[in-house]
Formats: sequence, C-alpha cells, structure tokens
Amino acid sequence: MATVSVVMGSDSDMPVMAKAMEILEKFGVDYEVRIISAHRQPDIFFDYAKTAKDRGVKLIIAGAGKAAHLPGMCAALFEGPVIGIPMKTSDLGGVDSLYSIVQMPTGIPVATVAINGGANAGILAIKMLAMTDDSLAGSLHNFLEEQKDSVAAKDAKLNTEGYKAFL
Amino acid sequence: MATVSVVMGSDSDMPVMAKAMEILEKFGVDYEVRIISAHRQPDIFFDYAKTAKDRGVKLIIAGAGKAAHLPGMCAALFEGPVIGIPMKTSDLGGVDSLYSIVQMPTGIPVATVAINGGANAGILAIKMLAMTDDSLAGSLHNFLEEQKDSVAAKDAKLNTEGYKAFL
Amino acid sequence: MATVSVVMGSDSDMPVMAKAMEILEKFGVDYEVRIISAHRQPDIFFDYAKTAKDRGVKLIIAGAGKAAHLPGMCAALFEGPVIGIPMKTSDLGGVDSLYSIVQMPTGIPVATVAINGGANAGILAIKMLAMTDDSLAGSLHNFLEEQKDSVAAKDAKLNTEGYKAFL
Amino acid sequence: MATVSVVMGSDSDMPVMAKAMEILEKFGVDYEVRIISAHRQPDIFFDYAKTAKDRGVKLIIAGAGKAAHLPGMCAALFEGPVIGIPMKTSDLGGVDSLYSIVQMPTGIPVATVAINGGANAGILAIKMLAMTDDSLAGSLHNFLEEQKDSVAAKDAKLNTEGYKAFL
Amino acid sequence: MATVSVVMGSDSDMPVMAKAMEILEKFGVDYEVRIISAHRQPDIFFDYAKTAKDRGVKLIIAGAGKAAHLPGMCAALFEGPVIGIPMKTSDLGGVDSLYSIVQMPTGIPVATVAINGGANAGILAIKMLAMTDDSLAGSLHNFLEEQKDSVAAKDAKLNTEGYKAFL
Amino acid sequence: MATVSVVMGSDSDMPVMAKAMEILEKFGVDYEVRIISAHRQPDIFFDYAKTAKDRGVKLIIAGAGKAAHLPGMCAALFEGPVIGIPMKTSDLGGVDSLYSIVQMPTGIPVATVAINGGANAGILAIKMLAMTDDSLAGSLHNFLEEQKDSVAAKDAKLNTEGYKAFL
Amino acid sequence: MATVSVVMGSDSDMPVMAKAMEILEKFGVDYEVRIISAHRQPDIFFDYAKTAKDRGVKLIIAGAGKAAHLPGMCAALFEGPVIGIPMKTSDLGGVDSLYSIVQMPTGIPVATVAINGGANAGILAIKMLAMTDDSLAGSLHNFLEEQKDSVAAKDAKLNTEGYKAFL
Amino acid sequence: MATVSVVMGSDSDMPVMAKAMEILEKFGVDYEVRIISAHRQPDIFFDYAKTAKDRGVKLIIAGAGKAAHLPGMCAALFEGPVIGIPMKTSDLGGVDSLYSIVQMPTGIPVATVAINGGANAGILAIKMLAMTDDSLAGSLHNFLEEQKDSVAAKDAKLNTEGYKAFL
Repeated sequence: MATVSVVMGSDSDMPVMAKAMEILEKFGVDYEVRIISAHRQPDIFFDYAKTAKDRGVKLIIAGAGKAAHLPGMCAALFEGPVIGIPMKTSDLGGVDSLYSIVQMPTGIPVATVAINGGANAGILAIKMLAMTDDSLAGSLHNFLEEQKDSVAAKDAKLNTEGYKAFL
Repeated sequence: MATVSVVMGSDSDMPVMAKAMEILEKFGVDYEVRIISAHRQPDIFFDYAKTAKDRGVKLIIAGAGKAAHLPGMCAALFEGPVIGIPMKTSDLGGVDSLYSIVQMPTGIPVATVAINGGANAGILAIKMLAMTDDSLAGSLHNFLEEQKDSVAAKDAKLNTEGYKAFL
Repeated sequence: MATVSVVMGSDSDMPVMAKAMEILEKFGVDYEVRIISAHRQPDIFFDYAKTAKDRGVKLIIAGAGKAAHLPGMCAALFEGPVIGIPMKTSDLGGVDSLYSIVQMPTGIPVATVAINGGANAGILAIKMLAMTDDSLAGSLHNFLEEQKDSVAAKDAKLNTEGYKAFL
Repeated sequence: MATVSVVMGSDSDMPVMAKAMEILEKFGVDYEVRIISAHRQPDIFFDYAKTAKDRGVKLIIAGAGKAAHLPGMCAALFEGPVIGIPMKTSDLGGVDSLYSIVQMPTGIPVATVAINGGANAGILAIKMLAMTDDSLAGSLHNFLEEQKDSVAAKDAKLNTEGYKAFL
Repeated sequence: MATVSVVMGSDSDMPVMAKAMEILEKFGVDYEVRIISAHRQPDIFFDYAKTAKDRGVKLIIAGAGKAAHLPGMCAALFEGPVIGIPMKTSDLGGVDSLYSIVQMPTGIPVATVAINGGANAGILAIKMLAMTDDSLAGSLHNFLEEQKDSVAAKDAKLNTEGYKAFL
Repeated sequence: MATVSVVMGSDSDMPVMAKAMEILEKFGVDYEVRIISAHRQPDIFFDYAKTAKDRGVKLIIAGAGKAAHLPGMCAALFEGPVIGIPMKTSDLGGVDSLYSIVQMPTGIPVATVAINGGANAGILAIKMLAMTDDSLAGSLHNFLEEQKDSVAAKDAKLNTEGYKAFL
Repeated sequence: MATVSVVMGSDSDMPVMAKAMEILEKFGVDYEVRIISAHRQPDIFFDYAKTAKDRGVKLIIAGAGKAAHLPGMCAALFEGPVIGIPMKTSDLGGVDSLYSIVQMPTGIPVATVAINGGANAGILAIKMLAMTDDSLAGSLHNFLEEQKDSVAAKDAKLNTEGYKAFL
Repeated sequence: MATVSVVMGSDSDMPVMAKAMEILEKFGVDYEVRIISAHRQPDIFFDYAKTAKDRGVKLIIAGAGKAAHLPGMCAALFEGPVIGIPMKTSDLGGVDSLYSIVQMPTGIPVATVAINGGANAGILAIKMLAMTDDSLAGSLHNFLEEQKDSVAAKDAKLNTEGYKAFL
C-alpha cells in the first residue's frame, strides 16, 4: 500500500521528482511513482487519480511544467491534499508552470512549492503525515536539527578558514 | 446538432464568452453553450468533452481564468480544434490565464487568442469552418470588409471634424 | 485547544483571511486567530510560533503581503505544515507576495495557495486534517459535491434562460 | 497545390518551423515553405499573403520572434486561419514574441501556440483540416493514440527499472 | 504638404495621439492625421505608407496597442524615421504594446517612446526636424527652457508654502 | 543647516515624499525639500547635488517614477548615502521605477526602499543618522516599540471582538 | 567634425555599440566615440553632453545597461535627438535597461531601439540624417534593397535545397 | 569589535558577498562574517541579530536568494541600518530575491542594492559610516576619484586604438 503517490507528466521531470522520492525513502514512507500525462492520456490519468484513495494513497505529489495541469487535475479528482511542483522551463524560467499550478480557483487548492522544489515537496508531505504520526514527527524533528548542523558546520569553517576558502 | 461548443468554467466569464457567441449567431453557426468546471466537476467535464464529437461538435471554444485548465483539458479529450480564451484576472492581469492556456506541451495544442478575446475566438472559429464552406467564406469576406468600412468611417470623420471631435 | 492557527501580519489582510476562517467554521475545526507582525514584533512572533505545538496546533495558515516573510518564518519555527496566502498588492498585483512565499529554499517548504486564496487555504487545511479523520473526510466529500451542484445549477439556468440572462 | 503554407521571417527560425513541417509530412499534407520578412520585404510579403488563397492554401503557419508581426500581418491579408508560433528570444525568453502574436486586436485573430511550439502548430493544422476530412481524422486519432503509448512505455520502464534508471 | 504624418490604429488612441499633435501645432509643424488599421485595412495602410514620401512626409508618428504592428509596418514601408507610441492596455499595462513596438528585428528600427508617451513623440519629432532647421531649433530651445521654469515655479511654491500645500 | 535633503522630480510625488518628511519631523531632524527634475533642469540639479555637502547635508532622500534617474544621479554627484524611493506608475505598477533605481552599476549604490515607500525612506534615514547619535537611537527605539504596540492593540481587539469586527 | 556622437557607459557595451558604428561607417557618416560613465564621471559627462552641439554633433547614440541613465541624461543636456540602446543584462535579460531608457517622463524623450539593438540604432540615425540629405537617402534606399535581397537569397536556397539544408 | 556584520543564508552566496568584504577591507573597516540561515536556524539567527549591537555592530550587510527573508528579519531584530543584497536565481533571474528584500512593509526598511550587487553593498556601508568619519570620507572620496580614472583610461585607449581594440 502506497501512502504517497508521486506522479509526473514527463520523464524529463525525473531529476526534480527524484528529490521528493529521496526524502520519502529517507523517512521510510511508502510511495508509488508514475509517469502519466493528463493531456496525452486523460483516461489513464482519470483512472489513476480516481482510484488513488482505494490504493491507500493519502496525498499526491505532482510535478509538471509549462501549462502545468497535472497537479490541478489531480486535485479535481482526488479528495486528499495535492502538492504541486512547478518545473523550471527553458523559455520563461518556470513562471508559466508556477502560475498554472498555484493560481487554482476557489474550491480546488494545490499546495504549491518553489520552482523545481522537489525536496521541499517531499518534506511538506512528511510534515502533513507527521501531524498524526508521532514517530514520523520525531524523525522530522531530527532531520530539521541536522539541517541546522549542516549550516553551522559551514559557519564554523568560515570562522576558521576565512571566506576565501569558499571561493 | 451543434457545430461549435462554447464552454466556460464560471458564469463570471460570460461577458467575454458572449462576444464569441454573438459572432457565431451573426454567421448563423449552430452552437451549444455550457458552464462546466473541469476542476469542480471533472466527471461532468469528461463526459461533456468525450461526447462532443458524437453531438456533432466540430470545434470547441473554451474560456477560463487564473490556472486555466479547461481549454487544455478539452484538447486532451476532444480530437478537434480547441480555441482557448484567457480571462483577464484582477491580480495578474490575465498573464496567469494566458500562460496556463498557451504554453501547452507538445502533442496537445490549444489555439489561443488574446486575453479577453471573446470576439476573436468566434472569428477564428468561423475561419476554421469557412475553410471548407464557401458560403461561410463569403459571409466572412463581407464581415471583414465591413470591419474596414467601420475604421474608414472614423478616418473620414477625423478628416472632416478634426481630432478634437474624438476627445 | 486550537487545531489550526490563523495568523496575519496586518489587519488589512482580514477580508482574505476571513474566507479561510469561514471554511474552518463550516467544518467545525477549532482555530485561534492572531494579528502578529514578524517584522515589527519578532519576539512576540517567535514566542507565538514556537509555542504553537504546545497549544495543540497541528497546522498554521499564514497570510502576508509584499515582502511576505510571515509564512516562511512560521515554517522555520513550527515543525508542522504551514499554508501561505500571498496578498494582492496595489502596485505589483501580488507577484511580490507570491514569490516571497512560494520560493522557499530547500528544507523549509510553505504550502502556497493562489494570490488572495483565503478560502482555498481553509480547504487545504481541511484536506490535510481529513487524511486521518474519516468524519472530516466525509464532510469534505459533501462540500465538494455541493460545489459541483452549484456550478450545475448555473449551467441549468444557462440552458433554460440563455446566456443573456447572465449579462 | 499546397494546402498549408509555412512561412518564417528568418532562417534562424528553421529548427522550430521544421517540427511543424515534419508533422505535415507525417500526415501527408501538401505544403509550401517560404522565408519572407514582413518588415524587410513588405511587397513580397503582401503578394505572398494575398495570393495564398489562389495557390490553394487553406491555412498558414507563421513563425516569428521579437516584435513578431508576420503572423498578425498574414491574418490581415489572408482570410483563412493563421497559426502563429512565437520564437524564444535570447533576452526576454520569447515573451516579446508571444505578446506580439497573441494579443491581436478584435477582428483579426491569430491561433497562437506555445513559445517554440513548432510541432503543436503542425498538429493544430491537422486538427483544423481533419474537421472535414475523415481520413485525416483517422490518422490523427492513430497519432494521438501513439502519443499515449509513448508515455505508457516510459511509465512501464519506471515500474520495472525504478526512477534511478532515468537519472 | 504635411511634414509629419500622425497615424493610429483606433480612435480609442486619440487622447494619447492628441498630445503629439498639440506639440506639432505649438511648433507650427504641418501634419496630417489618419486612423488606419494595419490589420483590418492592409491595402489602405500599404497605400498610405508607401505614398507618404510623395506627400512630403518626412517622418511618421504611429501609435498602437496590444499586438501593436502599425509602427513596425510603417517602418517597413516608409524609409524615413518612424516614432512609435505603445498604448497602455487594460490587462497587461502596455508591456505587450511596448514589446511589439520596440523589439524590432535588425534592419527596421522604430524610435520608441514611453507607454502613452504622446507628448514625447511630438517632442522627438521636433528634435529630429530641428537638426537642420535653426528656427525650429530656437523654438525647441525656448520650449525646453519653459519646461525648466515650470518645475522651478513649483519648487518656489514649495519653498514658500511648504509641502502640505501640495497634498 | 539641513541634515537631510529631500528631493523629488515632480510635485505629483509629494504624497509619497510627505511620508518621509513626517518621519523626519517626528524625530526632529532638520531637512530641506526641493522639487528638481534631473531631466528638465540638469544644471539646477547638478548645482543642487554638488553643493549639498556644503549645506551640511549628510544624506539625500530622492523619489522619482518611470525612468527614474534622480536618485542615481544624486548618488553620482553627492558622496554621502542616497535613499531612493521608486514611485508607483499607472501602467507598469512601478516596476519601471524600481529597476531604474535599484539596478545601479557597481560603484554608485542607491539604498532603495519599496515602491511608494516614503515612510520607510524616512525611517532608514533615521537609522543611518542614529548610528552615531545616541539620542536619536533612543527615539528610534521608542518608535519601534510603539509600532509593536500598535499591532498588539489590533491583536487584542481581534481577541476581544472577533474577526468580523474588522470586515 | 562629428555628426554623430556614440557614447557608452562601459567598455563591456562595445560589441553592441560596434554594430552602430559599422552602420555609420558604411554610410560614410562622421562620428566620435566615447566611453563615459554618467554615474562615475558626472562632470566629464556633463561637459561632454553640453559641448556636443559645439562639436557639430547632430544626434547622439547612447547605450547603457541595468539602471541605464546615460541616454536619458544625454537627452537632458543635449537638445538634439538621442537614440538609446538598452543592453541585455545577465539577470533580468535587459528589461531593466529597457524600462530605464524608454519610460522617460514627458518633455525629455529618448528614441529607444530593441535590447542590444546596436545596428538598428545606427540605421535609425541614418534615417534621421537622410530626412534632409538626398545622397544619404539614396544610400539608405540601396541598403534597404540589399536587405530584401539577402532574405530573398535564403528563400531561394530554401526553394532549391529544402528546409533540411538549414538544420 | 566588528563595525559591520556580513551575513548570508548559504555558502553559495559567498562570491557575491566577498565583493562586499573586499570593499570593507580596502577601507580598513572591521567586520565579522557569518553563514546563518534564518529559515533553518531561527534560534541561532535570532541570537545573532539581537546581540549584534552588543558586539559593536553599527550596520548589517545581508545577502539571500529566492524567498529571501534574511535581510528583512535582520531589520526586524537589529535597530541599525540593514543593507540587503538580492541574489541572482537560476529560474527567475533574481526578481524573486529582489521583491522579497525591497518590498518591506512600512516600519522596517531594508536598504536594497542591485541583484548580485555585493560591491555596491560594501560601498553603501562605507557611505553610511563616512557620514560621521572624516577620515573614511576622505578615503571614499579618493576611491570615487579612482573609479573616474579607471573609466577615463578606457576612454583614452578607445581614442588611441579605436573601438576594434575592444572586440
């Protein structure tokens, strides 16, 4: 049973989506992953999104670029939370993807993260699941503490070696 | 039997969509009109778009605003041409609607017109239908000639009365 | 005990934030509401965000405009999900608020909704809570069905009265 | 006799325009192709656009970049449908081309596709022609089915080999 | 004989274009004024632009909005300088008009002024004509001195009455 | 002797500039105020900026809109700090003013505040002066505390009267 | 005696400015060229711009990037026409340069060409000078005819060799 | 004792921040430098900013990218001037960083410099400190004179060697 469903419209989105999956794996959350195009495969997509609940899916992480409809259409068909990742685009930098995902009309929200924000999509999923899972909340707490230490280590190096060591 | 299907995501889009319908009526083209939200009513929407061909629909004119997925999802489900109208939005001026409609990925084009371009969507529909309908092509020709005359009349007034008559 | 904490940086944000609270009330979810400026009152803000968990808060809905730091700083101090609402601004339309909220760096996501998307922030909160609350999930399902009926009623009126009845 | 006329303002647009021609060839649609600058060669351009109908042209696909007037001026001179392709630009990403093509004033629409959307321009042309050509409609249907299969094959690979096979 | 030709695509542009004409009148420069749509009336427009030189026109001031092709097409057909005025638009603020006018490809420049910059278009025309007309150069010098005095008068009022007199 | 010089390019900027002056008055800082156009009155402007130091001016607050050169040219001629205020513009919202002020090339910085940020320009001036003026630093501290209390009062009202009292 | 003065704020602008000078040379127009920073060298700049007329300069071509004040300040100090070239910038693509040059306030226009439009600035200068110089007008006519031939040659190659010869 | 505190959110900002430190070193101003993430290490950040005054810090230079909250939060906690440097971003060019830093709400200004404007942040700091430090003012004067000479040297080379020497 997959708790989280990760879906993308194209395999070119994989490097960004992989960051989300790495987070899910790190926290031991079961997930499924699919490449489905809402535009090219609307029937497959409809079936995917409408049956997600029956597969045990609690939330969906959907990434797409340009006129990015996949996250919003997931939110139209699946009643749980949908996290949307706007892909950077080569011409408009991803502002097209961002607007297509975040500017959802009233009634059908998508929880949007930053352009190419794959890791943050994974972390946001953990935060949602950890609301009612104390073990996951503990792991999340540790993860966030490690983030702090990682920055602190760089600050310590700066203090010791000076800024030119970073150039 | 409706040759053209006009669809919008919200009744707030009606003033813009009406401009398209006025053109269709002027040219005597049969049309149907629907308010369907791809986000709120995905099942109704799917049924609408998939059965359009069986209702005799040759092309769809779809208008939507913000994260505007309606035209693109029409194009995913209906194999004929889809004309998309991006609605002006109060915060971003409609650039969100425009990007969400025009930046479609390869394989599923939407024929996009200007922001709030209801009349132009109607005229574009006539142009498509007139490709193989000489009578319609004749009416279109006359319509375009009248457009010229309308501008020429203003130019004549300018010549006669001077520019201050327009202020 | 408040399950959701609603916080805004200025009372001028209230009309948008009220939409979120109306949703929470409709679903019977306990919430607290505060006006706190992360910029003007950093100490009060820190205390607010760090003690939220102890007050039983499961998630925060934070709205702010311009260089909108409130949602991101909530996410820095509170380990649960934070939903961010970018306020429309009079000069830049809200794109400044949107970028300041959605473009969070890796590690500290904010679940961003549309500019002025108060109601959607509330609905997203319900979706998160309903993941593990079957009763809430049932209410959410009914709410989403009512949304469908609301659009369908307009479509029926259109069918009966024609589009000019909407102009 | 050419059914479709493909025209571009500069030979630097050829890689994008070629995608449109590949589609036309795939579907066996006769086309002509020209490099004509509406700005540098207005007389040649006028003659080209005004005589297109007499050459049997049913629709024009026009690509241009920056202050892209070619598609709009085609639409001013040719009464059939004009499909416009905004070229990506090195400084503004193509938003200048897009606005110059899509924001046409009332009366003279251009059916605009995505920035650098050469293939989609070709597909849109096929959709228009297939409205009254059952054989072409059949080929289009098969083409769209193949698109589905192409995505499905990647999804199958993902299922079998895992996401790391795509990195 | 008109030295300057003022042309606009729509009578809705008149309030902005009038500012240019007021400058021309103030300096006693002969001008003609026309409303011609390059899109709706390409033949009339071509004739207008190609015969301008024969009418004695030394330079053209052209204003247009949205996908504003009028100034650029004037520059394609008339070998003298063309001054372009981008009109403010209700949805995109005029950035569409600006890009459509200023981003001309190599070979066919348009001398672009600010959005809604009617008066500046007139002044720029005077500057061009004054290059070889000492009398006009003298008038221009006086005009620019008066501009200085106008600001100085406000500064003097500020000095005398204080800033609250301006609120 | 004026410690701060407040300068604007047009009296239409006064409502925004007044906010800066109100702050300076509140803190008892001597200032001069001028309306000078760097574009229309370059000689007066040069004299103003080059003699500012001799008039005892320690810093300049300069506001301007559109292609806003006043703050940058102050910084070119006056060696002390220059605070720039970008004016909101009716067409582009002030992004033109902002870019014209903040994007200064290396060597000549302008301390830029928000679009229409008159009060913040005044506060920033106080912060600069208070670096070496303990009395002013004390007043600033009190001012910032009052800001906190102002928000806290609204929060208290919210707690007592509920959010509907703000609608 | 220089008829045209070419000025840039930084030697990094030279590749773009060289395109303007190549045009001037091609037409045999005398020009001077300077690197002067309005920001770093305001006194040198003032002297340069105010004495230009005495050096016989009829018009100035000024290029600058980012918060590009050089063209506008030239226009403030020199009463003849000023042609402004916005430089492409690495972060904002040149939209900052464009707004800083084109959005000049009423009274002080800059004839703005496209981002990095060096050649077009040169051609625009020729167009201005040719208004009262029949020999130059003749050369300009020939130049524009050659432009046509250059495109026509590519079109002929396309006709002969097919589009794949351009890929 | 550090007069200036330089702080950045990530070591990837170092190349830009180093430019500010090089200026401080050139002028002999004592500074401290830290890598602290306001988002990942809010407690460390709060302690840093609140104790800055006690460490003798007169002003802070803070750089950050994307949803850049570091400069604004410094300004919330430290009562002296804060100079903000928006980092260029790979997707949006830095406009996200710029808006997140410059658009601060009333009461809490950040003195914002250009995108990636590290050197300018350093120079602005010197300008602030030099207001009451005659020795530093003298060094600043010399530095600004050297800037002039640097441009003049290039202009001299241009005069001697011609523009092709720069290509």
